[in-house]
Amino acid sequence: MTQLDDLPIRDDLRGKSAYGAPQQRVPVALNVNENTHPIPEDVAHDIVARVAAAVIGLNRYPDREFTELREALAGYLGHGLSAEQIWAANGSNEVLQQILQAFGGPGRSLLGFGPTYSMYRILADGTGTRWIEATRDEDYELGPETALAAIREHDPDVVFLCSPNNPTGTPLSIETITAVADAARGIVVVDEAYAEFAEPGTPSALTLLPGRPRLIVSRTMSKAFAFAGARVGYLAADPAVTDALRLVRLPYHLSAITQAAALGALAHAPEMLATVGEIRLQRERIGVELARLGYRPYRSGSNFVLFGGVDDPQALFRALLERGVLIRDIGLPGTMRVSAGTEAETTAFLEALAAIGGA
Amino acid sequence: MTQLDDLPIRDDLRGKSAYGAPQQRVPVALNVNENTHPIPEDVAHDIVARVAAAVIGLNRYPDREFTELREALAGYLGHGLSAEQIWAANGSNEVLQQILQAFGGPGRSLLGFGPTYSMYRILADGTGTRWIEATRDEDYELGPETALAAIREHDPDVVFLCSPNNPTGTPLSIETITAVADAARGIVVVDEAYAEFAEPGTPSALTLLPGRPRLIVSRTMSKAFAFAGARVGYLAADPAVTDALRLVRLPYHLSAITQAAALGALAHAPEMLATVGEIRLQRERIGVELARLGYRPYRSGSNFVLFGGVDDPQALFRALLERGVLIRDIGLPGTMRVSAGTEAETTAFLEALAAIGGA
Repeated sequence: MTQLDDLPIRDDLRGKSAYGAPQQRVPVALNVNENTHPIPEDVAHDIVARVAAAVIGLNRYPDREFTELREALAGYLGHGLSAEQIWAANGSNEVLQQILQAFGGPGRSLLGFGPTYSMYRILADGTGTRWIEATRDEDYELGPETALAAIREHDPDVVFLCSPNNPTGTPLSIETITAVADAARGIVVVDEAYAEFAEPGTPSALTLLPGRPRLIVSRTMSKAFAFAGARVGYLAADPAVTDALRLVRLPYHLSAITQAAALGALAHAPEMLATVGEIRLQRERIGVELARLGYRPYRSGSNFVLFGGVDDPQALFRALLERGVLIRDIGLPGTMRVSAGTEAETTAFLEALAAIGGA
Repeated sequence: MTQLDDLPIRDDLRGKSAYGAPQQRVPVALNVNENTHPIPEDVAHDIVARVAAAVIGLNRYPDREFTELREALAGYLGHGLSAEQIWAANGSNEVLQQILQAFGGPGRSLLGFGPTYSMYRILADGTGTRWIEATRDEDYELGPETALAAIREHDPDVVFLCSPNNPTGTPLSIETITAVADAARGIVVVDEAYAEFAEPGTPSALTLLPGRPRLIVSRTMSKAFAFAGARVGYLAADPAVTDALRLVRLPYHLSAITQAAALGALAHAPEMLATVGEIRLQRERIGVELARLGYRPYRSGSNFVLFGGVDDPQALFRALLERGVLIRDIGLPGTMRVSAGTEAETTAFLEALAAIGGA
């Protein structure tokens, strides 16, 4: 039988393993930061009706410029954004990959602040961009001084700021983002995948876009919008940025069905986002209860909580799984990460954890 | 206003323009080789029903391994293929891009035989793969000797064989494919996007897969399957190849809706493909009529015809567009390309052409 190593794969891929959060069917899956609330039934009906209208014309290529979707996303984001400032792709991973294809690549570098979203490094590898991982302050925080020191030291072509940070949940202050955007020579991407879960009143990096043509704010419909299965990521930036991405995107990259489904979800944005407040409550509850059990939860502005004080993450992972609860060992020693689920799912997690015994 | 050139885009992208087949609303669009027959209504109903079942769970990530879809595609292709030999992505462009990410890239080369599908070069550029364009025999044919000479001369890491060739329509013999597959040191991809339109009895490169772990056959649902708007491309190869692609694909690259819609279409494969015979008839009719009008149609095994003898392609393009017929000037001097439409669309094209006056 032919093995992977028998094939002429690129040398830099040899020995690597694929991205692999486990996909297991368990009663309580809190491992990949999904919104565990299903889509409301009336919204689902509208989405299906829009998809049905698109299906009959599937023999034709979709609108390559996904104009209607860009208009709807601009309207959703507000901040005076227009459709030509919006770009979208099959998940924010594809958005980030396209950014690196246009502005990174061989001979160029991408700076991130680890521990951060594991896909950044994979996307850098996949596009031949040199990955530089700078370190954070204590407790995974990232202040302006630390960020600026890394910019000065590495002079990167592209910077990815994860705000709030995954997998630690750490909120990122607008002061740090502003400092980086103004100091960096290259492209600065603020990945706001989890932005909707921030404390109300937290300013988005969208407020910094005017006058900063090298600043990009990426978003996703996978998290707060409860639309992970539909694969819709997007960004807001100067129109010149979307012109650049048009050079590297694959033609017709967004299917007619994806466009129709996303338009349906966006038409019901308030209803789709109605669970955000409840999820925030469960996140706070997790923090309080974890501390009571002797664990050390980190500050979170997202829909998940990273907690320390775990003697043996793999043992805890297995013990929870035996009780039907799937959470994530993200490889940070002594920690585990759990998504905030519905009230019932969160209760199941906390009760299982209490039954296993505290830290 | 910020211009594209004010941004720090990669030097190799400066001055390039994006892929851009015109998307215009015209009565008769025969410019991008779509299947112009809409999806049968009962099939559309089944697709919508399957999508509806998926929508309610869109808050969750899709099956990253799209197992059910791979099984259905294996079943459709036949030839004793199993699910682990199948891979799929958002259009065959993404399939080809993933192949280059795994087996091409900086320091590696891709050989194609021009004129051929314009995306090959764009995909090479986008992945940092060196593009080598060898030439064809007379009338855009490609015999084993010419193909082997290019392999010997360039010793490429990857070869793309377009069978039948786009934009010329030229069938590629199984002898040439076999010779290339056996002589090349690297990966050989046979792009069979239009294979279903070949003369009945034409062997597919799928028959060559056993014992050839570096051979890949790519397909699409965009053409014969009338599913261009859904963006589903796929390939068959040794299971080790799909292992390699897992290293470069973006996680969850195929949405739950795409998977559901494709499964619906595949469940009705005979009905979805029922128009293939009719399209082949219209292609033959176009060839006969073009010759009668004094043009020079080239041999085609696809759903389109390239024809020479055009004094001024841009003038003919505009004259047809004024009559509501959109065809394609693919940049080959003295030629135009037209897709075989329904009988009525084909009649509209031929009548418009006759009214404009022959070659």
